[in-house]
Amino acid sequence: MVQVHKAEEIIQAEVRDFGTESVPFEQALGRVLAEELKADRDMPPYNRVAMDGIAFRYEALEQGIKTFKIKATQAAGDRPVEIESAEECIEIMTGAALPASADTVVRYEDLEIQDGKATVLTDEVSKGQNIHAQGKDKKQDEAVALANQVVTPALIGVAAAVGASQLQVKMLPRVVVISTGDELVKIEETPLPYQIRRSNSYTIKAALETYGVQADLLHIPDDIATMKRQLNNCLQQYDVLILSGGISMGKFDYVPQVLEELEVIKLFHKVKQRPGKPFWFGKHAQGALAFALPGNPVSTFMCFHRYFLPWLEASLGAGPKRKAYAVLTKDLTFNPPLQYFLQVNLSQNEQGQMLATPQEGNGSGDFANLVEADAFLELPAEQTNFKQGEVYQVWPFKQLV
Amino acid sequence: MVQVHKAEEIIQAEVRDFGTESVPFEQALGRVLAEELKADRDMPPYNRVAMDGIAFRYEALEQGIKTFKIKATQAAGDRPVEIESAEECIEIMTGAALPASADTVVRYEDLEIQDGKATVLTDEVSKGQNIHAQGKDKKQDEAVALANQVVTPALIGVAAAVGASQLQVKMLPRVVVISTGDELVKIEETPLPYQIRRSNSYTIKAALETYGVQADLLHIPDDIATMKRQLNNCLQQYDVLILSGGISMGKFDYVPQVLEELEVIKLFHKVKQRPGKPFWFGKHAQGALAFALPGNPVSTFMCFHRYFLPWLEASLGAGPKRKAYAVLTKDLTFNPPLQYFLQVNLSQNEQGQMLATPQEGNGSGDFANLVEADAFLELPAEQTNFKQGEVYQVWPFKQLV
Repeated sequence: MVQVHKAEEIIQAEVRDFGTESVPFEQALGRVLAEELKADRDMPPYNRVAMDGIAFRYEALEQGIKTFKIKATQAAGDRPVEIESAEECIEIMTGAALPASADTVVRYEDLEIQDGKATVLTDEVSKGQNIHAQGKDKKQDEAVALANQVVTPALIGVAAAVGASQLQVKMLPRVVVISTGDELVKIEETPLPYQIRRSNSYTIKAALETYGVQADLLHIPDDIATMKRQLNNCLQQYDVLILSGGISMGKFDYVPQVLEELEVIKLFHKVKQRPGKPFWFGKHAQGALAFALPGNPVSTFMCFHRYFLPWLEASLGAGPKRKAYAVLTKDLTFNPPLQYFLQVNLSQNEQGQMLATPQEGNGSGDFANLVEADAFLELPAEQTNFKQGEVYQVWPFKQLV
Repeated sequence: MVQVHKAEEIIQAEVRDFGTESVPFEQALGRVLAEELKADRDMPPYNRVAMDGIAFRYEALEQGIKTFKIKATQAAGDRPVEIESAEECIEIMTGAALPASADTVVRYEDLEIQDGKATVLTDEVSKGQNIHAQGKDKKQDEAVALANQVVTPALIGVAAAVGASQLQVKMLPRVVVISTGDELVKIEETPLPYQIRRSNSYTIKAALETYGVQADLLHIPDDIATMKRQLNNCLQQYDVLILSGGISMGKFDYVPQVLEELEVIKLFHKVKQRPGKPFWFGKHAQGALAFALPGNPVSTFMCFHRYFLPWLEASLGAGPKRKAYAVLTKDLTFNPPLQYFLQVNLSQNEQGQMLATPQEGNGSGDFANLVEADAFLELPAEQTNFKQGEVYQVWPFKQLV
């Protein structure tokens, strides 16, 4: 039996690198960027007009000129039209490239335009105004996005802007989610009075989807020979096996035994925590990892979020995420010398503090409660009394806002 | 020109209902549940054994019996085996249905088993222990998930457990994302010195994907006749048009004019905010809505998050989300009488407070900055000086943790 931080340390020591692959940028959302994206040109690539109006030379104002002959109209996307004297201006639109012969833009709101001439109505004009200077945001070849971050919608827009139609992203592990337990029947079946339907695998598969991981599902009966044959196949075909059930003291809890017979080295069995105590973790000689989680749905869910996802994020190079903290809103006593993962609802107070309010529930067995909860609050094993107002680490499993 | 809260109010008055549809539960992640899910049986459906060990009658202990004859072994999924006397027990596994003739379970750790007999080694046994009672979590027909919530991995697991292989979810609007501006070229093209690549549409399309919305993309040139024909088609075919660009004072900013000619009633034009001031919003006689956002990428992005997404969430019945707040970490002055949406990074301090640290940037034009920022902090128009330690509403566009 290991402590939570030790289990975490052992798992994080088994971080893997699954390599990189190239994907069309539009399909990269949620993946981890594996290259530095660079500006292919300055950003903006030209002195970009930032207001609709006229462009002219600032020296004209210094010479007392306030009315300009409109030489031409230049839309965004037009080749710049040069002026040839201080008396001329170009009527010019937002997004257009400033002509090299002009240096200042006055917006329509500060102009009067009549008979092909524009008169500046304001005295408050400064040289270079209303121009977003070439290269001000980024210089050519400067990084616009660093590697090892999750591809967001904003990053996809920036990739488009720099013409990165393909992105190098981290490859994802091949994952199989395995349920065990002869009491489990298929979703479409009507269970007998002493059976229940499978559910853990679907929860895990769905949670993996948000990372782009398309996991396979497998159910293995509580039969040593079958289990051995099937797990052996899985160890060859997958990078990660996420199992649920079959790891406790029961007579038919064959998972640890079979994994060890298949040369999966046990790295720990049992963690000082509730829920999730029976958690078994090991690695195969050829590299595959086995996260054998307890079959209780809340235990499975907690271990998946507390251990597997941080491992996945680290393996993809995008971890660890920033830790999150919340204030406990109610006094609480928990006596067993176990790290306690409390189901909580999150909210914020007027000071912008994150608050964690314990869910009323039936303990770790009640997984219907998870639908309403937002997070697990992690309460240290060394402590028994937890007071309102104390701050603890929190593991959200819903988007906070 | 309207204030931010007024713009929000006008948009929220145009919330739509797109109806419901049935989807396989495994494909429902991220959709909004449109039905109440009910327990098809009690949860647990039987008195569920919660520890591996033996099951017997508690009265046996009261009669001084500590050693029980093991009548049978019952695995999870087995039909319950009844005992016939107080001297008998069933060796029984976690997840099994407790036989009606037994009422108490003692775990292996507190037993000695020899020669077909099990002896209870502890004095601390209470009647009914280690049993997760039938119906304790939910009664048959009780709600396990309420309507109008986003389908999470946990909800998918619960749907599996109650056999809901199809889920009623809210239908999504048909959305087209339209870019305008003749300076914009395709991603795979090398822009001329006075051109740039399209990017806004890809950002918005990606952001919509996280809601399950598969938007179409369209680019319309700055030509009134073409624009009119294409927008007219869009108004017939889509529920929502999200446009970027073409709504300012420029000579070729035809979008508002063309929309109004096509009987899209203007509900507002211009909002007292930076970025995003030129935002135009209207509705077509036949129902379609036009969110005509400014073409500047940061403006587009801000308006999309501040106005479109809350409208979408409300239209799907899953809004409004809880507001989020953060503490400003630096003094700041902003003089214009506009609501200021500041790009910030979010973090937490030891009190669990959310902190908003302004991004160093080049103002609203620098959209490469959005890759590194986490949120917009909304600073009220009525105020000029914003002090470190003050709390303001925040609009995150990255997952916070």
